[in-house]
Amino acid sequence: MTHNIAILGASGYTGAELVRLIATHPTMRIAALSADRKAGMEMAEVYPHLRHLDLPRLVTIEEIDFAGIDLVFCALPHATSQAVIKELPRDIKVVDLSADFRLRDPAEYQKWYGQPHAAPDLQKEAVYGLTEFYRDEIRGARLVAGTGCNAATGQFALRPLIAAGVVDLDDIIVDLKAAASGAGRSLKEHLLFSELFENVMGYALGGTHRHLGEFDQEFSKIAGRKVEIQFTPHLIPATRGILVTAYVKGEADAVHGALAKAYAEETFIEVLPMGKAPSMKDVRGSNFCHIGVAADRRPGRAIVVATLDNLTKGSSGQAVQNANLMLGEPETAGLMGAPVFP
Amino acid sequence: MTHNIAILGASGYTGAELVRLIATHPTMRIAALSADRKAGMEMAEVYPHLRHLDLPRLVTIEEIDFAGIDLVFCALPHATSQAVIKELPRDIKVVDLSADFRLRDPAEYQKWYGQPHAAPDLQKEAVYGLTEFYRDEIRGARLVAGTGCNAATGQFALRPLIAAGVVDLDDIIVDLKAAASGAGRSLKEHLLFSELFENVMGYALGGTHRHLGEFDQEFSKIAGRKVEIQFTPHLIPATRGILVTAYVKGEADAVHGALAKAYAEETFIEVLPMGKAPSMKDVRGSNFCHIGVAADRRPGRAIVVATLDNLTKGSSGQAVQNANLMLGEPETAGLMGAPVFP
Amino acid sequence: MTHNIAILGASGYTGAELVRLIATHPTMRIAALSADRKAGMEMAEVYPHLRHLDLPRLVTIEEIDFAGIDLVFCALPHATSQAVIKELPRDIKVVDLSADFRLRDPAEYQKWYGQPHAAPDLQKEAVYGLTEFYRDEIRGARLVAGTGCNAATGQFALRPLIAAGVVDLDDIIVDLKAAASGAGRSLKEHLLFSELFENVMGYALGGTHRHLGEFDQEFSKIAGRKVEIQFTPHLIPATRGILVTAYVKGEADAVHGALAKAYAEETFIEVLPMGKAPSMKDVRGSNFCHIGVAADRRPGRAIVVATLDNLTKGSSGQAVQNANLMLGEPETAGLMGAPVFP
Amino acid sequence: MTHNIAILGASGYTGAELVRLIATHPTMRIAALSADRKAGMEMAEVYPHLRHLDLPRLVTIEEIDFAGIDLVFCALPHATSQAVIKELPRDIKVVDLSADFRLRDPAEYQKWYGQPHAAPDLQKEAVYGLTEFYRDEIRGARLVAGTGCNAATGQFALRPLIAAGVVDLDDIIVDLKAAASGAGRSLKEHLLFSELFENVMGYALGGTHRHLGEFDQEFSKIAGRKVEIQFTPHLIPATRGILVTAYVKGEADAVHGALAKAYAEETFIEVLPMGKAPSMKDVRGSNFCHIGVAADRRPGRAIVVATLDNLTKGSSGQAVQNANLMLGEPETAGLMGAPVFP
Repeated sequence: MTHNIAILGASGYTGAELVRLIATHPTMRIAALSADRKAGMEMAEVYPHLRHLDLPRLVTIEEIDFAGIDLVFCALPHATSQAVIKELPRDIKVVDLSADFRLRDPAEYQKWYGQPHAAPDLQKEAVYGLTEFYRDEIRGARLVAGTGCNAATGQFALRPLIAAGVVDLDDIIVDLKAAASGAGRSLKEHLLFSELFENVMGYALGGTHRHLGEFDQEFSKIAGRKVEIQFTPHLIPATRGILVTAYVKGEADAVHGALAKAYAEETFIEVLPMGKAPSMKDVRGSNFCHIGVAADRRPGRAIVVATLDNLTKGSSGQAVQNANLMLGEPETAGLMGAPVFP
Repeated sequence: MTHNIAILGASGYTGAELVRLIATHPTMRIAALSADRKAGMEMAEVYPHLRHLDLPRLVTIEEIDFAGIDLVFCALPHATSQAVIKELPRDIKVVDLSADFRLRDPAEYQKWYGQPHAAPDLQKEAVYGLTEFYRDEIRGARLVAGTGCNAATGQFALRPLIAAGVVDLDDIIVDLKAAASGAGRSLKEHLLFSELFENVMGYALGGTHRHLGEFDQEFSKIAGRKVEIQFTPHLIPATRGILVTAYVKGEADAVHGALAKAYAEETFIEVLPMGKAPSMKDVRGSNFCHIGVAADRRPGRAIVVATLDNLTKGSSGQAVQNANLMLGEPETAGLMGAPVFP
Repeated sequence: MTHNIAILGASGYTGAELVRLIATHPTMRIAALSADRKAGMEMAEVYPHLRHLDLPRLVTIEEIDFAGIDLVFCALPHATSQAVIKELPRDIKVVDLSADFRLRDPAEYQKWYGQPHAAPDLQKEAVYGLTEFYRDEIRGARLVAGTGCNAATGQFALRPLIAAGVVDLDDIIVDLKAAASGAGRSLKEHLLFSELFENVMGYALGGTHRHLGEFDQEFSKIAGRKVEIQFTPHLIPATRGILVTAYVKGEADAVHGALAKAYAEETFIEVLPMGKAPSMKDVRGSNFCHIGVAADRRPGRAIVVATLDNLTKGSSGQAVQNANLMLGEPETAGLMGAPVFP
Repeated sequence: MTHNIAILGASGYTGAELVRLIATHPTMRIAALSADRKAGMEMAEVYPHLRHLDLPRLVTIEEIDFAGIDLVFCALPHATSQAVIKELPRDIKVVDLSADFRLRDPAEYQKWYGQPHAAPDLQKEAVYGLTEFYRDEIRGARLVAGTGCNAATGQFALRPLIAAGVVDLDDIIVDLKAAASGAGRSLKEHLLFSELFENVMGYALGGTHRHLGEFDQEFSKIAGRKVEIQFTPHLIPATRGILVTAYVKGEADAVHGALAKAYAEETFIEVLPMGKAPSMKDVRGSNFCHIGVAADRRPGRAIVVATLDNLTKGSSGQAVQNANLMLGEPETAGLMGAPVFP
């Protein structure tokens, strides 16, 4: 059975990545692509790497006939996303890649995103899209909110530790290294090649990054109490990839054991042998996530390193994984491509 | 029907790329992997990006039981390759990725590779593996010689022009830009990150690059007379990709027409609209090749730009494409993955 | 004796490079910095790498008191440059880094830049700033027009060959590889890190690049007849550097000899031993230019490779070199910093 | 007065960087260069970027006549360094760039470097070369031990905080990002361009990096009690630069104040305004170090970010700075070159 798919906001990097993944998906078929400012153009003009595909022309959202659409991937900016999804027919399944439906609490949304939520009812209904932890809810959901790419990486490293109670909840530090594509195809000076090449810089220092809203919500929920981690992202000179180094207080063996157990049956999460450090490039272009653990020289301290591709497992791959569940397909359909190394 | 595959020399980049491609191939199954110096190791230790796959342990060639093997990919260095292939059972199909069987003439082999050929009979039997131009011979071949990655790129740009007689055969200049992975996983100073990063350099200046042997052989054969092009490769700070800029004397429209006609039915070769320049990144990680043509301001001169991924279309993807034909499978099986951009 | 310097357009890359070079110049002192849109800001806010310097605040051009200024570096966009320079007091020396005064012929300016020249008198008076070839005129000039960075590289490779009559004037092909900073600090999609990283692309194919105006003017002047070369620039994934590969018809020994003779006494131009290829990174961050020559396998053909740093020898370093001459200082003052490798 | 300088181990990156810096030093003159395996070669063959300089040919150490030498920079590997320095004439000043004389305690040396020290007397005599903190001892020293590049970066971030008592000594975490040149010009697989490009990886996880010996020694000495920090280095895809993100428990204002006060008079250390994050590229190719501080959202926690160029301020620039003091020259002589950006 073929599922007709529409991608809203197809001219961004996550939109292009969705097309790339769906191109070899056994049962999904791209029926519509929207891109407001580029409506009327061929996708091959916007992304020449997709020119071998037979794709529909880019249109405005208004031009799409949603009658035959089974599922919509919404890759629009936050705030826009909620306005658009609110208007979609209720019988269409939606995977949203923006930040709009990640936070359960309207007050938290307003705090981190600086404006009131325009669709609080949908916000309530939405399921958080971290597949490995919300699989059952996602299967039955109409609206799934893809996680933030940074938030996903940190959660893969830490959720099992919080759940198993093997780390001090008041002293978790996450130092994150993020490649440039996470910032999208946006014209900003610090994203220019000449600026970022041979450069590394911290940003959103001191706990101001919006993905903290997700960390707070999820970690507190698991722990049954308020958990606030310390989190500093850094921009690194690479295109794809996030690598998280998490500093926790706990026994490394217990930490490694909790991760190994949590992910034992997971196709996409690979826990490396104790002491092994994952490399960002080893997951590039794929839906896999590698996690490693090491004991510090000081007893009672451990380091957890997790890495994934922000455009795949961190957003569009995760979105397809969720859509597979929502459509009754095998969860891994179209997602088993091996990482592209070197 | 499943085909059992052995990869000899699996610890190099082309070996790893073969594993990556075969991992999602519908009918190939990796039955054996050899790597002499790393025999005994798991592939996941040598290439952690493949750790999610259930692969046989690396062994020596001698340890492989070839009884159940249908096809061998030989990714060994030249000279070694001919010695190994000579000893393989005659009923096994072989795709060789080395330079050993590309040249028909033993004297030419000796000229370019500095030693006599050790298996001249096999050399005679081998079919040149540029699929789009040797498709019929490849289908019935036992031994196919994969083309050089540089030689493939130049030929995609130039063969149709020589065949159609639309360019001056005595004045073809090929300026080639090659990414680092073409040199393999070899420990050489100029391949160190600190040396190549932010660097560009010509090498094998003046017509000493070995792939010239292939150009000479193929272009002369098409033209029915001796054709010697001028060819200068450059190493550029990228991992994957080759981009050829060919300077020819001929009418740009005729040049574009000859290319468009030659590749009209080809799945993997995309001829861009007149005047459009292809980008190396638009084919990365894929089996596609993009070609563009522009007229020079001086009448009677044209520029042809062709680009492909050296590890995929330039070697391992091409090898799988050939193997598909040899095994009676659809030529594109396992090769339709879209390029990874950005 | 200290010379008071004003830099107009200090917020671009060439402006910042001028500040970097002048920072350790023995006799230049930065007295004023202009940047219209960033007027009022400290240079350290715009370029934090210069924060250790005691620099004047950025102002508008109108705010500068030119009374005490000895020399102006004008690093404004073309068209703007001519309008500004026209209004400067006649007793101030000017080194212009834009394209506005490079072409002698108003018709040529209009052809390549698409609009009539607004200061044709100044255009006539300006001296072309390729120091090694216009040294005497520059010494006495009031207005010097810095060459284009691509044009400079090509000319260093080719001028002595044309002057010595050792190459066929009708068959010169220049394949150029240019790093991203040549395009300036401008917000364009193809200059984003995620787009250019791991990418190579030709642009201005077919002889439409504006620096051809300079090549035509200079080469025709040397030859005493019309000379039109074929020229294709490529954007490469690096920040600084240009590498030119020139294909010429002539004897390699004569070619090498002409270059070696022309540059024998030049401090900044290094001609490598016959057959040696220069590397782009070997001149990075410096005012040096390396040139190599090789014979092709086909008699009567040679390859010339030249490389320089587009921001230093290609623009701001060249500008300081010219200013040194104009101010009666040693030509190499402030410019002997060795390349930054690796 | 001119000082005659010998560089032992001139064929490594720190050796080449010493030559680069001394090339424009007002009073140092390179009198001898050694490189055992490359003895007999010209420096321009080993490092073509230095070919404009008139340098002595590379020789073995035994071939050097130390009679006229005033100061030796020893850029040899650890263990070799102590053997060589032991044999140098006692009247020659020595700046060692290896790890051999950094640790005061022979037992600590053996613990971190795996073998007993061969020159324990010299070890006692050596002065630790972190100029800003050992200025007076360095002035009078015969033997100065350059700090490790990672150790230097971490200490610039943390020493003033420990000295001022504004952070919890038991909970300091240093997450470090290091560019590839810190590993030298050594042929290792993970340092190949194809491996490191688009990659990030932690290494020496869990407190096994040798620079911890320096941290422990220095921080404990300042605090007057045992201080053991947690330290994880990461390799990043860049050539030059180290960026440290230090997580401390303390009031951000007090932290910023302690740094601002400690470095108020320092030429090479720039403390950014509160909340500003430094960028690695802003110090590239220079002897400057930028430091920033931000408060975390959780009270009582702060983040300190420090960055420098590992080859300049982290080793060869620091070495020249120390040599200046030892020779009675201005501390900043030859070191005021501005960072190379972009």
